[in-house]
Amino acid sequence: MSKYAIGVDLGGTTVKAGIVSVDGKILNQLTVPTDAEKGPEAVAQQIVKVIKDIQHSKSGDEIIGIGVASPGLVKLDGNTVEAPPNFMNWDSFPLRDAIIKDIGNKLPLYVENDANAAALAEAKFGAGKEMDNFLFVIWGTGVGGGIIMDGKIYHGPHGGAGEIGHSSVDYDGPVCNCGNIGCIESFIGQRYLSARATAYLESRKDSLVWKLIGHDLSKIEPRVLYDAAMQGDEAANKIMTQAAELLGVAISSFMNTMNFNIAIVGGGVSGAGDLVFNPMNKRVKESVMAPLRPIAKVLPAQLGNQAGILGAAGLVM
Amino acid sequence: MSKYAIGVDLGGTTVKAGIVSVDGKILNQLTVPTDAEKGPEAVAQQIVKVIKDIQHSKSGDEIIGIGVASPGLVKLDGNTVEAPPNFMNWDSFPLRDAIIKDIGNKLPLYVENDANAAALAEAKFGAGKEMDNFLFVIWGTGVGGGIIMDGKIYHGPHGGAGEIGHSSVDYDGPVCNCGNIGCIESFIGQRYLSARATAYLESRKDSLVWKLIGHDLSKIEPRVLYDAAMQGDEAANKIMTQAAELLGVAISSFMNTMNFNIAIVGGGVSGAGDLVFNPMNKRVKESVMAPLRPIAKVLPAQLGNQAGILGAAGLVM
Repeated sequence: MSKYAIGVDLGGTTVKAGIVSVDGKILNQLTVPTDAEKGPEAVAQQIVKVIKDIQHSKSGDEIIGIGVASPGLVKLDGNTVEAPPNFMNWDSFPLRDAIIKDIGNKLPLYVENDANAAALAEAKFGAGKEMDNFLFVIWGTGVGGGIIMDGKIYHGPHGGAGEIGHSSVDYDGPVCNCGNIGCIESFIGQRYLSARATAYLESRKDSLVWKLIGHDLSKIEPRVLYDAAMQGDEAANKIMTQAAELLGVAISSFMNTMNFNIAIVGGGVSGAGDLVFNPMNKRVKESVMAPLRPIAKVLPAQLGNQAGILGAAGLVM
Repeated sequence: MSKYAIGVDLGGTTVKAGIVSVDGKILNQLTVPTDAEKGPEAVAQQIVKVIKDIQHSKSGDEIIGIGVASPGLVKLDGNTVEAPPNFMNWDSFPLRDAIIKDIGNKLPLYVENDANAAALAEAKFGAGKEMDNFLFVIWGTGVGGGIIMDGKIYHGPHGGAGEIGHSSVDYDGPVCNCGNIGCIESFIGQRYLSARATAYLESRKDSLVWKLIGHDLSKIEPRVLYDAAMQGDEAANKIMTQAAELLGVAISSFMNTMNFNIAIVGGGVSGAGDLVFNPMNKRVKESVMAPLRPIAKVLPAQLGNQAGILGAAGLVM
């Protein structure tokens, strides 16, 4: 008899659930819009409902457990979720307890931070297979991450490890949303990157980016920048190259301190391929200490937006 | 019957050995000049000799083991020591095997990197007692460190963890000796700090530092800067404050990523007290993420230059 886990990926706009095989295939998948504005109790009910709806596709004893990937800080108790961004009236909430109360089965249930779950997914099924130690980075709206150490998620003393986005690459740099100065997120997070690109493009009127945005600066976003760079636009290429190098700086500082030699980068840009991974790897190789230099590598994540479901299911396995 | 360990601190200029009680008191201590220019075999013989000389002060069954703190990379085998700075003809050498071969006893023997040993000493007997997780930083000629995780030394996947000195705080900063750009060491390591101070003082002819160095710029070193700052010199105070803040940047980036809330700073400046610890703590509090802010702290190391012997002995306990 084959065994499966249910993975739930709680996001600000959708709740996704999937039946996942032990080798990381998603068999059935269900997606519903998140009731993010209705408060945590309602969201917990939604999660219970998607789990119930999807588990019918397998007989009871084939399912070995349930994992939930949630935004926000998941405390070390594996139950309490604090302040997930874009959710209303959610300060601190015992998500695991709330789901168990109504789920009506005795399956083991795990709740994990979404970036950590995505890191675990890459470790079990993606770019990090056979790697016991790596830094996982999600480069998108913000810059988040997770740390896989000895094959397991590293939570840190207070449950919040992996925030590579708030590693400073410039002590005298821009002020980040978090209050810190020069965070890598304050250079390459979506909003900041767009603002920097806007400023840069003011004096590059020949850039293809202007065409792609119909000369409307409010439309500059990382996606447009890759598109232009992929089509050979020099200005866009320069912006993306510099952003990739900066992320390389943060990654190599982490590698030097933690003695890691692998980073896996996912999120929106991971599809941009060599355009960002070449300059990122170049900077990392230049910046890590001599013993790490021959083995330091930054790899693209492989699981894209399935990482949440796969990682949540991976918690069970 | 009381139990003791022998701790050996191998340095570039002296080999120190001590008999250490389980509560971290050094009973007897022996110091000899290091034969650093004679190659690793000769150094291993020296270590054997100091151990033999000092163990006579206790009866055989009171000594439970021997620890050796060595500069350079100690590989994960706990035996091979690579490229300790200031030692001649020492590329890679099986230090543990070489000592065991000639020691003539069956006591357990551990070899550990000196910064890691000092971190362990602070964990067992110093500022880190009762703390399971902290970053240890030695700020001196260079900036080194060690990581205590779950009460133990964290070695990292390749044995070289703890190199916080080569965390970059400025992606566009000075080139460090290691090849990286903007390493915290390239701002505040002894040589770099002196060079920065020299440049700064050129336009501050009223600074007390000029008097302390007899107007000989080659004599500027961190010690002189603290002395001047302690006596209220504004320029020296500014240089030391900025250096401390920069170290705070590197420490807070580590805390954010690893979710740590404690750092312990030793080395030459740890005696400078509030002068460096106040600005360092201020910057750390401002730079760590919200959940860490109320609990983040940088503490002065307590064990000074006894940390090597104590940490080496601590390996046994």
